[in-house]
Amino acid sequence: MAMTDVVLGVDIGGTNTKYGLVDREGHSVAQTSIPTNGHESAETLISRLHDGFTRMLAPLKASHVLRGIGMGAPNANFFRGTVENPPNLNWKGVVPVADLVRKYYDLPVALTNDANAAALGEMLYGAAKGMKNFIVITLGTGLGSGIVSHGELVYGADGFAGEIGHTMVDPDGRECGCGLRGHLETYASATGLCRTVSELLAMRRDESPLRKIAPLELTSRAVADAANAGDPIACEAFEVTGHILGMKLADSVAHLSPEAIILFGGLAAAGPLIFEPTARSLEEHLLPIFRNKVRLIPSALGEGDTAVLGAAALIWNELLKQQKP
Amino acid sequence: MAMTDVVLGVDIGGTNTKYGLVDREGHSVAQTSIPTNGHESAETLISRLHDGFTRMLAPLKASHVLRGIGMGAPNANFFRGTVENPPNLNWKGVVPVADLVRKYYDLPVALTNDANAAALGEMLYGAAKGMKNFIVITLGTGLGSGIVSHGELVYGADGFAGEIGHTMVDPDGRECGCGLRGHLETYASATGLCRTVSELLAMRRDESPLRKIAPLELTSRAVADAANAGDPIACEAFEVTGHILGMKLADSVAHLSPEAIILFGGLAAAGPLIFEPTARSLEEHLLPIFRNKVRLIPSALGEGDTAVLGAAALIWNELLKQQKP
Repeated sequence: MAMTDVVLGVDIGGTNTKYGLVDREGHSVAQTSIPTNGHESAETLISRLHDGFTRMLAPLKASHVLRGIGMGAPNANFFRGTVENPPNLNWKGVVPVADLVRKYYDLPVALTNDANAAALGEMLYGAAKGMKNFIVITLGTGLGSGIVSHGELVYGADGFAGEIGHTMVDPDGRECGCGLRGHLETYASATGLCRTVSELLAMRRDESPLRKIAPLELTSRAVADAANAGDPIACEAFEVTGHILGMKLADSVAHLSPEAIILFGGLAAAGPLIFEPTARSLEEHLLPIFRNKVRLIPSALGEGDTAVLGAAALIWNELLKQQKP
Repeated sequence: MAMTDVVLGVDIGGTNTKYGLVDREGHSVAQTSIPTNGHESAETLISRLHDGFTRMLAPLKASHVLRGIGMGAPNANFFRGTVENPPNLNWKGVVPVADLVRKYYDLPVALTNDANAAALGEMLYGAAKGMKNFIVITLGTGLGSGIVSHGELVYGADGFAGEIGHTMVDPDGRECGCGLRGHLETYASATGLCRTVSELLAMRRDESPLRKIAPLELTSRAVADAANAGDPIACEAFEVTGHILGMKLADSVAHLSPEAIILFGGLAAAGPLIFEPTARSLEEHLLPIFRNKVRLIPSALGEGDTAVLGAAALIWNELLKQQKP
């Protein structure tokens, strides 16, 4: 029987770490997850993952060959294979995650942040198949971005390129998790949408079911539900969010002239509520030479799979390049 | 005698078209210019240039071999070899400039805009020698930019990437030549500096020699002279310009994480007057992970040579790549 090549994709999240085996065509062969236990050391997590990988691979050994391990993690650096002061894990300083994995495996190991991994996943298996120039925006708690130019992920000089969430909307604006103010992710993210709701509830006098939800309990899903039921505050919150996101994406287009921008993550799941005002504002703010050229499209990967698929794509992308003439 | 390889570099400007022969090391072998006569057709200009090239090459034929023709022009498209609705020339629609040149020469011909050409010139012969990730900003009448990522010029999906001059500073701000409002080049350019002077003269009551100059006559050089003589309006105009430029360059860093940003052109010639406030504002607005990493440096090419050298670099860059193993 011919052996099937597979890559391990690993997504280290603040709460859970998902991992799975992905074949060349992007199909999931096996997938599971363990709690990250972010209070423990990175060494402990990698050791527990190694146990899990071993259990996952055991029944497949006769038919599958492991070709590499691709990993996505917050604040990951592709060049150094490190995770640096991750926001949701109690790992201090610069943690050599790729090296920790290499202690167990004599295979290619690569590491990048989740938005970059998502961009590679879309390029190999999703909405950006065949594209050479595009941007993936992940709209979750924050706003992450992965930029592909001429078919290559843009890492920049130090491996940290693609921080569109930390571009400036308003120098006197909202406090950002990074310590500065007015960054895009404080407006255009699931959290940003909820902050806009708070602002609108203060500004306007309309009745709204959102007045009954404590800010800490509010989710982008609840705002979407209210908007779909016609709540004017919720509808305007999406309008404002899309307006700001579209305006700033026009800046990204001016830098990079992508063929498409792919929106992904919890807030993108709101569909037309976020896509329509964003697309309108993007067109309105584009330099004339870029108008009607840039497609704003949803991810073509399932929410659950993307992180693992993207992490695996990090290795598949290299393996497939080597096979080209 | 060994023959010397040379490339023709051509810079089509609104008033004059410069051209010259550049050797592999970036030395100018010969250089001259003719009036562009922008009211005439592109065919006429290329025909006149062909006559000029022939005269320039005649005495060098025994010792030099022409390897290609690189051209810089406003609104030039690298992919298509076209110039599209150039702002300062009376050429309508899409002009196939590279094809017009190929009628006379069976050689590689390439075309891009002046800022992209400047970026290649800096990479091969100037301040960006050996760098793989950097941005060149030209501060003249407008603000042009050329972006290099992983050692390659970023053209984007359609050849028009690198329009940082048309990113947004203030949606309700100054009218921009492109038809929109509040773009960076309306603040950070020689023209933008003069507009800021007008604004400050309206706001403040200080005496200033700049009150004696009609806005249409005002130049960035005159503002620099006044600032160097201690004029408070002129000094503040540079502060404001640098503050806005630094803030927006922080956005560019968040996208691209360059090793350096190179400032070039008439306004950059003001030296510390523009570099100091820009560098201060850039650091202040950078995401912590990028701080103290990005150098803000002047061009290392002479103002007169750069356009022709950059245009020639467009061909040399390809020829040198082919020679690499």
